[in-house]
Order: sequence, then C-alpha cells, then structure tokens
Amino acid sequence: MPTYKAPLRDIRFVMDEMLDFPAHYAQLPNGDEASPEIVNAILEEGAKFTEEVLTPLNQSGDAEGCQFNDGEVVTPKGFKEAYKQYVEGGWPSMTQDTRYGGQGLPQSLGMVLNEMICSSNLSWGMYPGLSHGAMDALLHHGTEEQKELYLTKMIEGSWTGTMCLTEPHCGTDLGLIRTKAEPLDGDSYAISGTKIFISAGEHDMSDNIVHLVLAKLPGAPEGSKGISLFIVPKFTPDASGEAGERNGVQCGSIEHKMGIHGNSTCVMNFDNAKGYLIGEPNKGLSYMFVMMNAARIGVGIQGLGLTEVSFQNALAYARDRLQMRALSGPKAPEKAADPIIVHPDVRRMLLTQKAFAEGGRALIYYTAQLIDQVSAGGETGKEADELLGLLTPIVKAFLTEAGFEATNEGIQIFGGHGFIHEWGMEQFVRDARITRLYEGTTGIQALDLLGRKILMNQGESLRKFTKQVHKFCQTEEGNSDMVKFVAPLAKLNKEWGDITMQIGMKAMQNREEVGAASVDYLMYSGYVTLAYFWAQAAKVAQEALANGTTETSFYKGKLATAEFYFSKLLPRTKSLVATIAEGGDSLMAMDADQFGAGFEI
Amino acid sequence: MPTYKAPLRDIRFVMDEMLDFPAHYAQLPNGDEASPEIVNAILEEGAKFTEEVLTPLNQSGDAEGCQFNDGEVVTPKGFKEAYKQYVEGGWPSMTQDTRYGGQGLPQSLGMVLNEMICSSNLSWGMYPGLSHGAMDALLHHGTEEQKELYLTKMIEGSWTGTMCLTEPHCGTDLGLIRTKAEPLDGDSYAISGTKIFISAGEHDMSDNIVHLVLAKLPGAPEGSKGISLFIVPKFTPDASGEAGERNGVQCGSIEHKMGIHGNSTCVMNFDNAKGYLIGEPNKGLSYMFVMMNAARIGVGIQGLGLTEVSFQNALAYARDRLQMRALSGPKAPEKAADPIIVHPDVRRMLLTQKAFAEGGRALIYYTAQLIDQVSAGGETGKEADELLGLLTPIVKAFLTEAGFEATNEGIQIFGGHGFIHEWGMEQFVRDARITRLYEGTTGIQALDLLGRKILMNQGESLRKFTKQVHKFCQTEEGNSDMVKFVAPLAKLNKEWGDITMQIGMKAMQNREEVGAASVDYLMYSGYVTLAYFWAQAAKVAQEALANGTTETSFYKGKLATAEFYFSKLLPRTKSLVATIAEGGDSLMAMDADQFGAGFEI
Repeated sequence: MPTYKAPLRDIRFVMDEMLDFPAHYAQLPNGDEASPEIVNAILEEGAKFTEEVLTPLNQSGDAEGCQFNDGEVVTPKGFKEAYKQYVEGGWPSMTQDTRYGGQGLPQSLGMVLNEMICSSNLSWGMYPGLSHGAMDALLHHGTEEQKELYLTKMIEGSWTGTMCLTEPHCGTDLGLIRTKAEPLDGDSYAISGTKIFISAGEHDMSDNIVHLVLAKLPGAPEGSKGISLFIVPKFTPDASGEAGERNGVQCGSIEHKMGIHGNSTCVMNFDNAKGYLIGEPNKGLSYMFVMMNAARIGVGIQGLGLTEVSFQNALAYARDRLQMRALSGPKAPEKAADPIIVHPDVRRMLLTQKAFAEGGRALIYYTAQLIDQVSAGGETGKEADELLGLLTPIVKAFLTEAGFEATNEGIQIFGGHGFIHEWGMEQFVRDARITRLYEGTTGIQALDLLGRKILMNQGESLRKFTKQVHKFCQTEEGNSDMVKFVAPLAKLNKEWGDITMQIGMKAMQNREEVGAASVDYLMYSGYVTLAYFWAQAAKVAQEALANGTTETSFYKGKLATAEFYFSKLLPRTKSLVATIAEGGDSLMAMDADQFGAGFEI
Repeated sequence: MPTYKAPLRDIRFVMDEMLDFPAHYAQLPNGDEASPEIVNAILEEGAKFTEEVLTPLNQSGDAEGCQFNDGEVVTPKGFKEAYKQYVEGGWPSMTQDTRYGGQGLPQSLGMVLNEMICSSNLSWGMYPGLSHGAMDALLHHGTEEQKELYLTKMIEGSWTGTMCLTEPHCGTDLGLIRTKAEPLDGDSYAISGTKIFISAGEHDMSDNIVHLVLAKLPGAPEGSKGISLFIVPKFTPDASGEAGERNGVQCGSIEHKMGIHGNSTCVMNFDNAKGYLIGEPNKGLSYMFVMMNAARIGVGIQGLGLTEVSFQNALAYARDRLQMRALSGPKAPEKAADPIIVHPDVRRMLLTQKAFAEGGRALIYYTAQLIDQVSAGGETGKEADELLGLLTPIVKAFLTEAGFEATNEGIQIFGGHGFIHEWGMEQFVRDARITRLYEGTTGIQALDLLGRKILMNQGESLRKFTKQVHKFCQTEEGNSDMVKFVAPLAKLNKEWGDITMQIGMKAMQNREEVGAASVDYLMYSGYVTLAYFWAQAAKVAQEALANGTTETSFYKGKLATAEFYFSKLLPRTKSLVATIAEGGDSLMAMDADQFGAGFEI
C-alpha cells in the first residue's frame, strides 16, 4: 500500500525561505491570525490528519467506489467518519468569514492543507473541496438572509455544496444550457433540467447538500448572457434553519469512471425543484467566473498533490528494488544486484517527479499569496488579481499535465508492478487523468491564457510578470553561482515576449492562429514560469549552503534538482518554440472528410 | 460503445503502394502462397472477424474481467466462443510451418492481422498472441518429438502456450531467477518455483496450456549464463498425444490491473512439475532472446492498434460534438454550435493520432518484411536481421509511447466524457499503459538500442539504416515538391549519426552517459525513423495526385498528415538533442539520501 508523508520540510522552505510568508501575512488585514504558532499547528495537524486518517482510505476507497441505490449514494467505508473528524477539527471553517462562523485565516493556509489532502486522498478531498466554490459564491453574491441560512451551515461543515454547470450536450460551451427556472410566487423559482458530472452531487456525509445551479429564466437572452445562478438545496431549510422538506432534485445515477472512484460523480435531475436566485438575473456565468481562479488553481493543487505522493512512493521503491548492476560497475556489491536508483534513467524519472512537485509547490504557494492579496482588496489586490488571472491557466493546465507525466513516471519506475492495483501507483495516474479535463480542459486553459489573458489586453499582464522575472535576473546578474540559472531564464523570458508578439501578429490575419498555438504556448509559459521559481529556489539553497547550514542533504538536493530542471526539462521549450513558429497551416489544411479516408470506405 | 473499422484502405496503401508487398512476396520461398487472392481474403476475413466478433467483446471483457476460482480462471463472456471461431477459421496455423500443420504463409500477414486484433480487443488477442513466442521457441529449438507432441497441437489451436520468465524479485534482471529444475529419471525434470505476470497462464479457452519456463539446473553457472528453458505442460500428454495427467503447475492467483482486464495475468506456482528441457542446458536465455524481436515488435503493434482505434472513435466524436464557434467565425451556422473538429487544437490532437497510426503502420509493416526475410534466411536474411535488431527497440518503445500519448489525446478530445467507462476511450489508455512496460520497459529498450544495438558494434547497423535514408533523400533531392520533407529529414539523418558519435565519446569516459542519454536518444531515433516513412508516404501520395487519382480525399489527407508530422511532431527532436547534449551530470550528482529530504525528517 502506498504511504504518504506531508513534505513539511519543503513546505516550510517555500513558505519561510523562498516566499517569506511571515512578511506576507504581516501585510494582510487578517494576517495577525496567521501567527507562527497557528501556522505551525495547521501544518502539524494537517499532516497528522492527512497521513493518518485520509491516506489509509485512499486505496480502499478506489477499490470500493461509491454505491448508488435508488437515488442515494453510499460513500466508501470510512469516508463519512473521516469527514466527521474533519468537521470536528474545525477545518471547514478555517479560512472562512468570521461573520458567519469562520476562523478568518488567510486562504493560502487552506491551499497548503489542500495540497496534503490531494496527496493523501483526492476522491475524499473533493467532497469538502466542492463546497468552497459554493461558499465563495454565496459570500460574494448572496443576500444576508441566504448567507445566514446556507453559508453558516456550510462553514460549520454540516452541509456541503456543489456547482451544477455541465449538461449532457454542453460542458465548455455553457451558453447552450437548457435547464430552466420558472418564477413561482414569492422569491422562489421552479428549476427543471438535467446536470451531469456533478462532483459530490449526492452522498451520505452531510445533513444537506446545497446545489448552486446555472439555469435560464424565461425570456433570458440567448447564450452565455442569459444564464442565472440559483441555490437549490436538497432539503429546503425549515423555520429553524435545519434541513426540512425534500426538494425536487434527485441523483439519477453515478458515473463509472477511470479514476476518483471514491467521489460520486452524479447525474442530477431537477424536476420543479425550488430554487432561489443568487444576485441579479442573467449574471450567473460572471459570478461563476469570479470563483473560477480559485477552482482552477485547486485543480492545479491536485496535480501537485498527486505528483508529490507518486514521487515519495517511487523513491522508496527505487531505493529498495534490486535489479541489474550500474553501467559503471556494482554500487552495492554485497547485494545480488544494485538498487535501481543507481541507474541514470531511473534518476531521470525520479528527478522529473521531484522537479515538478517542488517547482509546482513554489508556483502554487506564490499564487496563494496573490489570492490572499486579492481577498484583502485595495490597489495591491487589484494588481494581484491581474497576475493571478495570468497564472491561473498556467497553474491549472501545466501542473496537471506535469502531474500526469509525473504519476506515469511513478508507474514506470515500478516496472510491471506499477500496473498492478496493489501497489497503488496506477491509481495516482487514473486519478490524475481527470485533472487535465475538469474545470476546463488543457485546451480551454490555453485559449484562456493566450486569447483572453494575454492578447486581449495587448500583453499587459504578461509584461508585468516578465518584468518581475527580468528584475530577478538583473539582480542576480553579477552572482557567478547563479549564472547557469539566470542566463537561460533571462533569454527565455525575453523570448516569451517575442513569441507572444509573433502569434499576436499572425492572429491579426487569422484568428485560428491563436487556437493553433495555444497549447504549445501554454506549455512553454509553464516551463519558463517554473524555471523562474527554480532559479529562486537555487538561490536560497546556495545561500544556505554558503552560510554553513547543517541541513546539507536538503539544500544540496534542492540545488541539484534546480540543475536537473534547467538541463533536462527546460529545454523542452525549444520544441515548443519551433512548433509555435510553424503556425496553424498544417492543422487547418485538411478537410473534415480527409481525416478518416484510411478506414472509411 | 466504441466502434472499429479495419483501416483496409490505409493497410493497402502501405502494403501495395509504399512497400510493394507483391514484389516482396515474390522473393520469398513461401511467397507463392501469398497470392493477391489469399492476401485479399486474409484482409477481408480478418477485418470481418475483428470488427464483428472481437470488437463487441472488448468493453464487456474490460468490465467483467477474469474470474479466479480456486486455481481456475474463467475468461469474460464470449472470449471462449470467439477463440473457437478463431480456431475454426484456421487463423492459428496461418503463418506456421507446413510440416506441423501450418499454412506456411509469411509472418508479415500474421502481423497485419495482429494489428486488427490489437485494435479490436487487446486482452483477447493476448491469449493466442502468447502462443506465438512459445511456438517459435519449440520450432527452432525443440526436438522433433517435442514438435510433434506440442507444436502440432498449438498450431491447430487446441493448445495454447505461455512464456514464464518473471519472478517476484526479478523481471528485467533474469539472471536472478530462483526457479529450479532437478533431473528426474529419463528425460524429464522436476520444476519448482514461482513465476509472476504470466499472461494467459491459466484460462478456459484451450484444452491444454504449454508453459515455456526459465529455470536453473543444479550447479548451473551464476546469473544469466545458467538459465535453461523447459516445457511444462498443464496436462502431460498421454500415449495418444492428448492432454493427460494434471501436472504440478497451478495458478495461485490473478493480478488486479490497471488495464487488459480481459486477459488473465497469473501467478504460476510450479511444485515439482514435470518439465522437459528445450535445446541445450544453460542456453535458455539466448533462446528467449531470439524470439524477443518478434515479441517486442508485437507490443509495438499493440501500440499501433490502440492508436488506430482511439483515433477512429475520437474522429467520429469530433465531427459530432457541437461546442463553441470557430475563432474565425461560425462554420455550421445552422447548428447551435460548431462541431469541435473545426477547432485547431482538436485537429492537432486528431492529427497526432493519425500521424502516429499511419506512420507507425508503415514502420511496422516494413519490419514485417524484414521478419519475412529473416525467416527465409540467406544473405538477405542476415542483413535484414541486423536492421531488424536496430529497429526493434524503436518500434517497441517509440510506438508504445506514441500509443499512450495518442490514446490520451483520444480521451482529451472527448473532454469529461473521455473519463467515463461507457465511452470506451479511457479503456484504450489503460490497456495501452502496459505496453510501455512489458517485454522490457521503454528504459530497457533504450539501453538495448543505444548500448547493444548501436554502440556495441560501433554504429555499424545504424549506418546501414541512415545510408538507406540518405539514399532516399538523395533520390528526391531534385524533386521540388519533396523538398519540405527531404531537407529536414536529411539534416536529422546526419545529426542522428553526429549525436551517436557524441554520446559514444562521452561513454568512453563514463559508461553512465549511455543510460543518461538512452531514452531521449530512443525517442529521437523514433521521430527520425517515422519521418523517413512519412516522407515516403508523401511521395506516393504526391505521385497519385499528380497521376489524377480519383481518391483525392485519401491522398490529400495523407499528404496533409505528412505535413503535419513534419511541422508539429518532428520538431520534438530539438528538445531531445538539447537534453542529450546536456549529458548525465545533473542525473548523477545527487546522493540517494538527498532525493527525499523534502519529506523525510
């Protein structure tokens, strides 16, 4: 069975040494709450909860899956009890508004905890995870009454939430939805329609489930401008605010999926269910988009979490498994063969996992600071929001693509054993596979990055980020130890701007050039962004070693991983630049009927 | 449910137009048998059998899996009956020796059929598939008596075979095996030990199972030089040659795996089972290696087969699914949205699948000709064998890596639906995942290619191949239509030699440089090799179009795919060259204890 140990040393490296979280918290209005003692307690208790409670349920949850019986969903053994412990530990309220029972801690701490949850048990984590988006929507757009009725219950954890967007015929293109909302007497609406892929849409872990549902009002404008957002509780709250009468929303079935078996993915049928409008009519999609950054970064965290846990288990196996001798002669002559960690290609795979995990952690924790700043508002918040908008599709798509690669390396290191359920390595791959799809596929993220976030504002937000990278490179210019990192980074940072311009020019002639370049462009952006964080990590490690740290293993390992990243992963940008330069002609040339001419007779 | 249509048009393109199989067959001693009528019948009947019998059992076989009951394995519903039809159709004997009941057709035809089988039902295909290696071993190294006793039954299909190599503590490193063979009276041995990952080790489809088992004789030399090969039948043949007494070999359990659920992957316990030596003592591993080329190319065919079927289904979905408008304006204004095939990134994914499928087909059919030539013997056979040795690890590793990427693109094109069992796209990914592992992982193939096949003979065999590529480029030099293919191919073909030299030089200083470069080198080799076949395909397509073919869809599609390959996939060599140039330092620098310092406290 796979094991998991919260990577507290590396988490602290990123928080304390790379990104100076103490200083960051000192500048937040709610930063006082995040005292070193509190942060410490959260890390320690979070580690304990995820290592001891969630990890042991991950493999059994996968094997058992969710059971669907006539509208009810039974979650895997132990999930319900773990959720109870989670609520008793006060975790659901940690980063929520104090006015509604929250503890008011910065969002970033929730994201650190979330990394551990995603490593230990992604399927379980999605039950409380989905509540977050719903809570955000209620907090920002709900009436005071709605907040008191629903939000307080969700913050205490006794109720959970969902987001009901997708329908059978539309996922990406929400303008096509058909779910209807007919006004009833008073302030309510009758919601009817079918939603699919509703994570945690039905389960046995909470007393009530608060669905946030996209639907169309009568006479609403066509397409995405005519979508409104509604609260549809599974049980309508009674006079005392407890779960009351059963509402007209039913789980019709659950999906049988490649992974995340422990999470219920529901078809939800709304049949004149009583719903309540959130905010103004026809603004539903924009309310959703506001929460999208957090949700998408949440999926990036899933990629990170799975990368980390796969790495940990692959490392243990690579040290233990004896097979062949090193090409340069025996390294463990006393044994029948050498442990496979001696082989360069096994090291390449382990280092790929480690580089994506630790680099991805730095990137995500950086965006966590931005999210804190956005919450705090003001001028800083506005600037943070722009940067966050830029980095969100990179975090979401790049770190999930990296997570899929990394978890696959985890299988590969185990050889044939990696393919067997028992070892748990293939579950990480199956679970990771969904992260490239939901909350917007990699292709959609890429269009968001290149089209919306960059070209639509003439590269303004990209320039803000590349300026920051440029500044870092300039500062380190004279540092001879840093040349090997800063020189290639500076070059790529400049190239990033150049290829953006290049695509922008082409796109003025032909809009399809944006879509043709987008995924390569996103991956390119991801490699450069991670290089920036790896360069920073290298700098901190070099300083620690220069200052005579006693933790030489940690810092030397960090530095060596930075070197690996720059020499073995970052050169992937070369191919991406080349394919971007090729443009879209070879994609668009073929007629639709020519694709299948080899088998369609 | 996914569908499958044997790509007969493209198969004929490769066989008749690219590789001139009629001329190839004319030069084989058994080539007369492969008359156009016979080839035609095999293609038509093979298509029918795989489309109508095997395809419908693929998804149900995955869902049902194999059942293990007290030593017996029940295969999924319909598998047994399909096997019966396969036997009745005379398929097992198609390419086998006429002296033992075979039809004596060239191996290549079996490989073409095998592609269709792998597309339609990989799990099922592995039952007869595993027999092939066992039959080869018996044919080449068995006594006349052994051939009459076992081979005839296997050729008629009433008995099947296995290869028992791996043990719990060793897969790649077979020198470590512990299974013992103690001489008994007469010509038999008592075989004892445990073998794992034995595909089709136990099942209900044939009357008997003939295990070929690697074991050690008493006093055998240490390591791989002390391994012998034994026949261990499940039922010892009786006096009349039928399955007689039950032998001491039992299936202890079957593995629960990520994919290929319909195939039984068995733990086989040998407890003083009666076995019979094949060939000479201590030569077992070399006998196995002789069959390795065919087995490894067989796995490459699995990668191809899964790529093809995933492509076919993704294409149908991309034409059908409506989502968003094309960036350059509506393409299907009469519909609610455009079919997603209009989007450049969806096309990129489809074309990636198509390019790997059709390019892979040409590469594999080319190796099929080499295999035919090797079987025919003589000087041509010797030369073919050298080329085959070079191309085998490329076919095995590159086409399975490509297959995994392509089947994953298949999921991606389906969006969230790709993650759901029902659509069948995720099964192709799970099934494809094993192909990167068994018969030697990608890492092992890479070492075989760079270390054994290339550096060990000073690049001799590589030079033979690059010379062939060079000749093709030279011939087309003056052809202006071909410049866009031939110019980059010639450049890469030269670079291939250069980087080989570069690595060879480094390896003289430090043997670990071979392992450090190997996987990147293999992938590089794969891209260049496929470019060679795509350039040839382009040439044929250009000529057909110039000659006024009526099949413009087919040939234009072929040409456009070649252009896509050169502009969007081949540039991946740039990154590979860069990472190879970086050498192994960044892989070897880290101490084993530094890897885990982020989480090990």
